[in-house]
Amino acid sequence: MAVENNMDALVALCKRRGFVYPASEIYGGLNGFWDYGPLGVQLKNNLRDHWWRCMVECPPIGPDGHPLQMVGLDSSIIQNPKTWVASGHVGGFNDPMVDCRECKARYRADKVFYIYVFSEACSRELKEDMSIYLNRDPGCEGEVEIVLAAAAEGDSLEQAADFGPEAIRQAAKKHNIGNFKKCGDPEEVDVLGNTATFLLKDKNDLDFLTIVMPATRAKGEPHPCPRCGAADSLTEPRLFNLMFETYVGAIRDEDAVAYLRPETAQGIFLNYKNVLDTMRVKVPFGIAQIGKAFRNEVTPRNFVFRSREFEQMEMEWFCPPEEALKWYEFWKAERMKWWEGLGIDSANLRLRDHDEDELAHYSKACVDVEYKYPFTAPDFGELEGIAHRGCFDLTRHQEHSKVKLEYFDQERDERYLPHVIEPASGLTRGALVLLCEAYTPDEDRPSKVYMKFDPKFAPVKAGILPLVAKDGMPEIAEKLYLDLRETFIVDLDVKQSIGKRYARQDEIGTPYCFTIDGQTKEDETVTVRYRDTLRQDRIHISKVKEFLMEKIGTK
Amino acid sequence: MAVENNMDALVALCKRRGFVYPASEIYGGLNGFWDYGPLGVQLKNNLRDHWWRCMVECPPIGPDGHPLQMVGLDSSIIQNPKTWVASGHVGGFNDPMVDCRECKARYRADKVFYIYVFSEACSRELKEDMSIYLNRDPGCEGEVEIVLAAAAEGDSLEQAADFGPEAIRQAAKKHNIGNFKKCGDPEEVDVLGNTATFLLKDKNDLDFLTIVMPATRAKGEPHPCPRCGAADSLTEPRLFNLMFETYVGAIRDEDAVAYLRPETAQGIFLNYKNVLDTMRVKVPFGIAQIGKAFRNEVTPRNFVFRSREFEQMEMEWFCPPEEALKWYEFWKAERMKWWEGLGIDSANLRLRDHDEDELAHYSKACVDVEYKYPFTAPDFGELEGIAHRGCFDLTRHQEHSKVKLEYFDQERDERYLPHVIEPASGLTRGALVLLCEAYTPDEDRPSKVYMKFDPKFAPVKAGILPLVAKDGMPEIAEKLYLDLRETFIVDLDVKQSIGKRYARQDEIGTPYCFTIDGQTKEDETVTVRYRDTLRQDRIHISKVKEFLMEKIGTK
Repeated sequence: MAVENNMDALVALCKRRGFVYPASEIYGGLNGFWDYGPLGVQLKNNLRDHWWRCMVECPPIGPDGHPLQMVGLDSSIIQNPKTWVASGHVGGFNDPMVDCRECKARYRADKVFYIYVFSEACSRELKEDMSIYLNRDPGCEGEVEIVLAAAAEGDSLEQAADFGPEAIRQAAKKHNIGNFKKCGDPEEVDVLGNTATFLLKDKNDLDFLTIVMPATRAKGEPHPCPRCGAADSLTEPRLFNLMFETYVGAIRDEDAVAYLRPETAQGIFLNYKNVLDTMRVKVPFGIAQIGKAFRNEVTPRNFVFRSREFEQMEMEWFCPPEEALKWYEFWKAERMKWWEGLGIDSANLRLRDHDEDELAHYSKACVDVEYKYPFTAPDFGELEGIAHRGCFDLTRHQEHSKVKLEYFDQERDERYLPHVIEPASGLTRGALVLLCEAYTPDEDRPSKVYMKFDPKFAPVKAGILPLVAKDGMPEIAEKLYLDLRETFIVDLDVKQSIGKRYARQDEIGTPYCFTIDGQTKEDETVTVRYRDTLRQDRIHISKVKEFLMEKIGTK
Repeated sequence: MAVENNMDALVALCKRRGFVYPASEIYGGLNGFWDYGPLGVQLKNNLRDHWWRCMVECPPIGPDGHPLQMVGLDSSIIQNPKTWVASGHVGGFNDPMVDCRECKARYRADKVFYIYVFSEACSRELKEDMSIYLNRDPGCEGEVEIVLAAAAEGDSLEQAADFGPEAIRQAAKKHNIGNFKKCGDPEEVDVLGNTATFLLKDKNDLDFLTIVMPATRAKGEPHPCPRCGAADSLTEPRLFNLMFETYVGAIRDEDAVAYLRPETAQGIFLNYKNVLDTMRVKVPFGIAQIGKAFRNEVTPRNFVFRSREFEQMEMEWFCPPEEALKWYEFWKAERMKWWEGLGIDSANLRLRDHDEDELAHYSKACVDVEYKYPFTAPDFGELEGIAHRGCFDLTRHQEHSKVKLEYFDQERDERYLPHVIEPASGLTRGALVLLCEAYTPDEDRPSKVYMKFDPKFAPVKAGILPLVAKDGMPEIAEKLYLDLRETFIVDLDVKQSIGKRYARQDEIGTPYCFTIDGQTKEDETVTVRYRDTLRQDRIHISKVKEFLMEKIGTK
């Protein structure tokens, strides 16, 4: 994306051209949810299929020169809730809740009297029970929600109310929230409904710490129940989970509580033994999965970057403990190479190793593939996390399920729990990167902008346009369309001026347009228009398929 | 599937060979949820991609000889809850709930004192408010849950307790539940935990009516709160929705309630206007979507046929009101042709027009594509429903959203709400049909069974097997594998006896195996083994790719 901070223009184009619509728009939308329109679903499917092809159907060549063993999986979004107890999500993925004793309403505590701290840097030196979640989570990249310890540890409401830069600094210090010292002064950025948001920025002017608090608190007013208005009716906070909760089955009590998965990874660990038992794989091997995940984010933002419903592409690579570091390095290089191979400007991609003090207690190493998003530029934001997770997950599931998950390694004649390297990326986030990367302003075009997709990801590979909708041109165009569509995704567009149709094809990122004009009937040639250079050549209509095959390959 | 009632054997094979595993199996599973293993996800993806290719990327030729206008969509699972009020799911997709006044536990009423009636036939003559749901639902095919009216209408608990064949017949009669007269005598089939299930079968010995009731009730005991044991503490029933419910956002009260979609169809109606405004389509056109849907079924059963989490492939075809019947006939023929084209034995497929009294009040016509499942044989069960929905959905969404959804038809110079034809099928159910259809017992093979998938859906297209894991054979095999995998999904399997490996390839349905043996080094030929005939030929190793291309096409 040539121009930074151009996010609004990109979002508008995505709506205008059918890439991404706000979900439930006719009902006023739903914060944190997006629908992928006709062009968006095709773009996303292209990325999904490419990942699946490269990782599962045709996996990379390993360090020994032989192809890796990798198998696919599609596990349920709703799993037995014990899964999330074992993974640490039920214990550590929490918000405090308060109830109104009068009207029985339940609220997230930040909405009524507590303060939330969000920080990229908070993950560095947190207590163990928090860090289980912190480094667990590929969609979260260290941005986590913690309640200021002044509140979480039961200090009085009066103390918690004593916020302000100094109070926050004190609380952070007390609880060893490192890097807090980098903070600048708070800046009020938003007062919306019941909530006031304060932003602290670091020296690079990046969002560093966001404090969300009730607007009433910001104004120093008392805090009645927001629903019934009763004063002093709110209970002490209890922990509330950030996973979306539901009930499965006929009885609706605490035994029936289940969760929408907050990541696809745990479905892989659940099936590790099934795969070992049925698929003739041997350690080292991997299991890969693409699917939806859900998080009840407090502040969804930055378009589809942080939404409450999203798609992940995750792998768990199981290997002997001594080989884990070797495989970690392998996947680090392999995954970076893969993203670079998508046609993303290498200046917009980087690898960022986590510092040792950023790691969860069980994690040996972690690295992010980062992209320079318009809303992070000139800094970078997470696209994929590659984590060396040791045997943490299998150990936990073995303990909680009482099912033996050890692997007997015949070659080594030993039994062990494999260690795991986890390359975990976001499919929706990947699609966002392709959109950001493609967005190219060009004042010289009628559309003022074009989407410079790599042809293999372009939702439409070729536009087929009769110059005018008469004189036999639409018939020739339809014939060409019917021939090409067997092999490629092509778009037949007949009406409106040719200029408007070119402008649309530019905005949807179609790399080639073929125009049928008066000359076509004379010599059977058509114009081929190149999206990026705007060059126009004439080629024989019978050569169009060959042309596309050479430029794009199939589909 | 040659042998009927062979479902247990198929389910076992699916587990044993990595097609379908019970979800969360190491934690004892979760009723109604299944995970797709490495072979299952590939099979399901093949079907998914084929549908998408045939309906969206390369849509059918219409009655006028021109290709249809069809676009894809991927809408959120969680939408603004007003969606489901407008669609009728919040009003009509209900179960009664009771609360315990003592311990505050909440139960579905059938678990504590009411009786449920499930019936394939119940949809025929129901009251309007029920029928909104009844014919709405492609995954449900008329199997709906209704509370025996004796209970739903507030008759005393004592009366509701008076169950038994006669009481049920009386209640059914009182509420015009047609076809009840076909019932035979009840047969107790299951007493499990708190629940007793009674089955009524019709004259063809098909499940017709299932009654689920508390076991205590069956034994004539009183009905205390199942949790705290308090007597007479349960409230009157209130309606409870069969949609999975969750809360979105920071505040957890009734305004935050949201639902997991029970169908993908409504996401299409929500985006009808967005697509019209951004995609240069004109009526008639269609929107197609593949995605997960969720229903908190009381009795999930028949493997993945009726699960609580499943995938749908749905289209909504928007057309001028006067053309709706023409398009209904078109889609009926087109969709049947599509299923037949998958290689399914035509004796196992049929179209069943709904009787007029089976239709919802707004529906003009409905037809099911049915398959002879092992658990329905010799009868058929639903695979796809094609419904003429009139303008019911757009009318409701227009009323509830206050957004104008009328279409201005330039050719006709008139404004109208398009009518809708909805071909709605299950992806997971389609994959089940492919599994059932492929399952072929064969006592003459070591595996005793093979999966006769049409090669285009087979999860693996070719097995590459060195006869023994020495003498340079694995190296030749790997070279062939690396060459073929660029184009096809192939499986390199090196160890174990060749017989065992052939048996596995038979069970996973690989249409062709190529074996590298001693002769390969001499004359560069390999054995090609045909799954269905067991014939073995020798072909030159350089011809293998050409052979597969000719037999299968790509991938």
